[in-house]
This record gives sequence, C-alpha cells and structure tokens, in this order.
Amino acid sequence: MKKHYEDLSTPARLLLGPGPSNVPDRVTKAMTCPVIGHLDPVFLAIMEEVQDMLREVFMTENRLTLPVSGTGSAGMEAALVNSIEPGDPVLVCVNGVFGTRMCDIVERCGGVLRKVEAEWGRPIDPGQVRDALEDFDARVVAVVHAETSTGVLQPLEELSSIVHEKDALFLVDTVTSLSGAPVKVDDWDIDVCYSGTQKCLNCPPGLAPITFSPRAVEKLDKRSTPVRSWYLDMSMVQKYWGSDRVYHHTAPISMVYALREALRIVLEEGLEERWERHLKYNRELVRGLEEMGLRMLVEERFRTPMVLSVIVPDSIDDDAVRKRLLDEFNTEIASGLGPLKGKIWRIGIMGISCREEIVQHILSSMKAALFRQ
Amino acid sequence: MKKHYEDLSTPARLLLGPGPSNVPDRVTKAMTCPVIGHLDPVFLAIMEEVQDMLREVFMTENRLTLPVSGTGSAGMEAALVNSIEPGDPVLVCVNGVFGTRMCDIVERCGGVLRKVEAEWGRPIDPGQVRDALEDFDARVVAVVHAETSTGVLQPLEELSSIVHEKDALFLVDTVTSLSGAPVKVDDWDIDVCYSGTQKCLNCPPGLAPITFSPRAVEKLDKRSTPVRSWYLDMSMVQKYWGSDRVYHHTAPISMVYALREALRIVLEEGLEERWERHLKYNRELVRGLEEMGLRMLVEERFRTPMVLSVIVPDSIDDDAVRKRLLDEFNTEIASGLGPLKGKIWRIGIMGISCREEIVQHILSSMKAALFRQ
Repeated sequence: MKKHYEDLSTPARLLLGPGPSNVPDRVTKAMTCPVIGHLDPVFLAIMEEVQDMLREVFMTENRLTLPVSGTGSAGMEAALVNSIEPGDPVLVCVNGVFGTRMCDIVERCGGVLRKVEAEWGRPIDPGQVRDALEDFDARVVAVVHAETSTGVLQPLEELSSIVHEKDALFLVDTVTSLSGAPVKVDDWDIDVCYSGTQKCLNCPPGLAPITFSPRAVEKLDKRSTPVRSWYLDMSMVQKYWGSDRVYHHTAPISMVYALREALRIVLEEGLEERWERHLKYNRELVRGLEEMGLRMLVEERFRTPMVLSVIVPDSIDDDAVRKRLLDEFNTEIASGLGPLKGKIWRIGIMGISCREEIVQHILSSMKAALFRQ
Repeated sequence: MKKHYEDLSTPARLLLGPGPSNVPDRVTKAMTCPVIGHLDPVFLAIMEEVQDMLREVFMTENRLTLPVSGTGSAGMEAALVNSIEPGDPVLVCVNGVFGTRMCDIVERCGGVLRKVEAEWGRPIDPGQVRDALEDFDARVVAVVHAETSTGVLQPLEELSSIVHEKDALFLVDTVTSLSGAPVKVDDWDIDVCYSGTQKCLNCPPGLAPITFSPRAVEKLDKRSTPVRSWYLDMSMVQKYWGSDRVYHHTAPISMVYALREALRIVLEEGLEERWERHLKYNRELVRGLEEMGLRMLVEERFRTPMVLSVIVPDSIDDDAVRKRLLDEFNTEIASGLGPLKGKIWRIGIMGISCREEIVQHILSSMKAALFRQ
C-alpha cells in the first residue's frame, strides 16, 4: 500500500539556539514572490541590489561580494578552496568546532596545515600567531570571529596586522557575527570573509554571503591550479555575478529573494544600532541567568553578543532541560558540541529575537525548566 | 546618501526555458511554514519523509538517498567527488554542456579522464563506450540522461550493462529528466544518480536529490583518501540524514519543505502518468512548431520530452524573438549554449507547465514573435 503524506505543518518555535534563527514575516513573504529565470533582467537587477547591500553589511568596497549557493559551511569551503593551492602553508586558529572544521577543509584542499590553539571557551592569543608565523611562511591565516560552538568573540584587529606583516591572506568566519557585532571588512583589512544567512540576518539557511579583497582576487587570478571545487570556483561564479552574466549554475532564486529582504531590514535599522541592541540584551540575559545562580563559560570581554554559553550545573540533566523547553515552552536552545557536549547550553538571541520580551521569556522558562523538575 | 531599496516584486512569468520552471502554489505555501531547527524532532521526521519520497521518485531502495544542500550542479559535484579518488580512471560521455562540465569536475577530483563524444544533438553510441573500455580500466562511467543543452535523451540500459561488465560505477545525471521521463535507478542498475529541483519537480532551485547504490557506498566506505569536498562529503552527510543524526551542516530548511510538497504532487499524479503526459504534450508541441515551418535539432526517438530544441531559422534573430516573448508575452524560453548559441531555442514544458493551454500559448506567441516582427 502506498504511504500517505499529510499537508506540511511545522510548529512556530522560538528558535533560541545558535541558528537557524526565527524569520520575520517580511522575509517569508519575499520568498513567495514568483520564481523567475536566473538570467531574467529583473533577477539580474535583484542580484545587484543584494550585492550592494552585502557590501554595506560587510562594510566593504570589494567588488567580489556575493551569496554562495549553499549554507554557511559552503561559505567556509568557498573561502578556503579559493584561497589555497596544494602545497600552500595555512595557519588555522582553533578554539572550537568551526576552527577544527577549517583544518579539515584545508587538508582536503592540499594545504600544509599548522594550528594555533586555545582552550574551547578562550580566544586565540595573537602573540602565539606571531610566534607561529616566525618559522612558518603561511599564505593564509584563518580564524573564526564568533565561535558558535563556544560563544567566544575573537578580537581581529591585532591579528590582521600580524598576518599582513607576513604578507598572508587574512580569512575570517563571520557566520554568526555578521550584523550582530561589528564586522568591518575594509577597516580591519580582512581578505576573505564569509557568513551565513540563518543567524543574525534572520533568513532561512541556504546562502552564504562572502567577500574577497582585491588581494585575495589577485591570488585567485594568479593560481597555477584550478580551484578544487567547480561549484564553488569564484573565478567562474564571479562571471555570473559580475557584469559578464555568464551562466555558471542556477542560483537559488527564492533564497536570494529572502536574503534581499533580510538585508533591507538590517540596513533600515542600521548596523551600529543593531550591534548595540545585541550587546544590551546579551548583558540583560547574563544578569538574569546569573541571578538564577548560573555561570557563563566565557569571560565577559570575549563573549559573543548573539550566542551565550551557559555552564550546565553539575546536578542538572542537560537533555531533560532542553526537552522540557521544547515540549512545554516551544523554545529551542542548543547543547554544547564535542568536548562541551552536556557541559554547556548555547542560547542565541539573534536579530529579531534579540529583544526585551524574548530575554524575559528565556529567563522565566529556564527558571521553570530548571527548578520545577 | 543611502540607497533606497523598494519592496520586492517580481513578474509572474511563464517559465518555458530549460529551468527554473514555474512553481505550484502548494510548493510556495509549504516554503512559508515556520523555520524550525535542523535537529528538531519535527524536522527529522520531515527529512525521513523526503527521503522516502525521493526513493519512490528515483525508483530505488537505496538507503543513501537525500537532497544535497545546493543546486543541481552541486549534485553533479557531489556525485563525482564521492565516487572518484585521485588517479581513478573515469570515462565521461560528452555531447553537450553538462557532459563537458563533468569532465572539468573529474579533473578537479584528480581523476584520469577519457571522453567518448558525440555531436551536440546526437546521443552517445554505446558501441563507442564498449570500445573505449577495452583498453581503459574506468572505475566510473558518467553520462547525462537528459542533456539540457541540446534536448537529447540518452538511452541508458545498454550502457549500464556495458559499464557493469567492466565492474565500473555507472553515474547518471538526471537533473532535467527526473519525474518527466522514466528514471529507474534500481531496474537500470545506476550506481550514482542525481537531479535538481527546478526542472520537472517544479520546486525553486536550491537542492539536488541524489542516490547512491550499495556498490557506490562500498566504494565510498573503502576510500583511502578523504572526499575532496567537506561540504559534499557523503560519508559525513549521511550521518546527519541517516539514523545517527550527527550535525554536519545546517540544512536549507525551507527548501526541504518545498521539496517535500513538490514530491507529494509528483506522487499524487503517479510517475507513469507523468511520463506519458510529458510525451503527449511534447508531441503536440513538435507538431505545432513543424506546422509553422520550424525544424527540431534532435531526431524524434532521442528527444527529451521536457526540453525541446528548435532550430532558429537562418533569417531570424534569436535574441529579438526571445526578447519579444519576454516583453510582450511574459514568457521565457532559452537560447542555445556554447556551439549552439544563436542556433537553437530551448523550450521547456516541465511538470505543471506541461499541459494543453501552455502548448497552445507557446505556439501562438512563437507565431506572433516570429511572423509579426
């Protein structure tokens, strides 16, 4: 007998994990605009607007700025695969899942990997990067800005100077930070910077905004080997997103619509206002959680404003609390990953979820889930 | 002064090129269901349903069947990158853009490439594949089922026998054919088969359904080198889509909703009914176009039912006709690619667009665009 599949219906959860985040109605509505062809003049104009808005949000003049046709991890792979040739020495800063993932990709690209590590929950020490570069002629140095697995925000300016003294490319993961904390691509001289849509941009997952500095484009142009991924090869993708409009692959049309609307919302509010709002409610959330007797994993000055890592008290069952939040309060928060599994909760207040009522909701529902077990 | 961006609005075109195709309201509506987490139990159940329905549509029992988080070209890359290790001899059948693209990817994977070619607009001759395999120990033989750039439908059964006599994997691109023409993965003993959502499935672009036979999975499991792409590494992706549910990357949630609804629509109609419908209206369209004096590029028995290649008459300006169709009739058809640019039009009748009124609309608007210039 044939199976029967019901009409799709999904619960309206409060998504307060480290992503995906909740999506504003305006973004959902944009996704329902009729699909048109990827070479339709109307779509080409939309692409240009999206690129212009991405440049504003990344704070860059970089010509090669576009959304990669995949989720944030495709952005990471695109950043690395377009920057590394087999045999290139690459230094990766590792203090969580996403730095670890970068190492994996570097090796698949044929890069010669060296790591600078910090404890999960601590930032990378720029002095160690300087030391490592003394006897390692890295062509690329890669670091995660907001390490989603731990909630650490990595200061970037000093690192950038160190990297450029050695004439390497500075590659930064801003999947979680973009539009929720300052990401100043040009001011901070970042060469390759990528993000995801499903964090502070409040857009469904499916695209990865990315930007390449003229220095990174020059390296790409001068490669002696093809980029290892055809799908993510920016030397080809840029001909579609650039003035040539050469067909490469069909863009995810509806996702581009959604991203356009999400970027409009960000720019209507203003980047600085948005950064301040994330900081403000992060502090309020921390205050409330500390009043409940909970402790944070990361010290205050290195905390990401959008993802907070809260230490699971010894007596508490991580899974049970999260299940109760989901079942009784329709609210998703996340567990830790890797060595932090079961040891922390990760609470995300990203974009539209970063506001007074949500902070109060988390505090009251956490209290209920913790103390009325 | 800051730029102003208007509310998004896109025209409701008739998309009668080779994809993207028009999207039914039910699919659009499914996309608007609230985004939930990629590890939410509700989403895990949706994933299982999507996998079950994909197995039905691919006509396979293959466990490793899922949608890749990228457009059709990501499916091609996923198929090849997971099947090829550096140094593997790979035979690619080339008679259009997509066979050519496969060659490019094979080389980026480190495969040792040999080609069997046919004129664009003609199918591959199985005898030539047999001959090529006499002195070339291919581990993978790759072919395009419906070559979207020319409108040729490649017969697969004889090829499959030839490939398996040599103990190679048989890898088939069904981006354009899936659900519009028979694609019998198990009956035809296809080892790796991928598709796209934006063709006969009538779903916005953004996912690439793919399926691997036990033989292909065994080769993947026994690799001595990691898959060159982290994002598309099925040995990892399958742990998320399989029973382990290990986080790999965030799935494009809303696109998975859309695909689920699109697959439901396909299965409600039935595959055989759908194949017959495509064949019927293809014939009707050809008859009408021939009555207007137009000629087809591909001989009847090798024509894809969903994409028709029509030769642009000598006296006619390809661009002007397409522009007039778009501007006056809100209808998109496509030009040729590569050596066929300016020489053919490609008219797609895919899924919901494959019906009586649409065929009549194309015929009358083509007539107007051609003869009232």
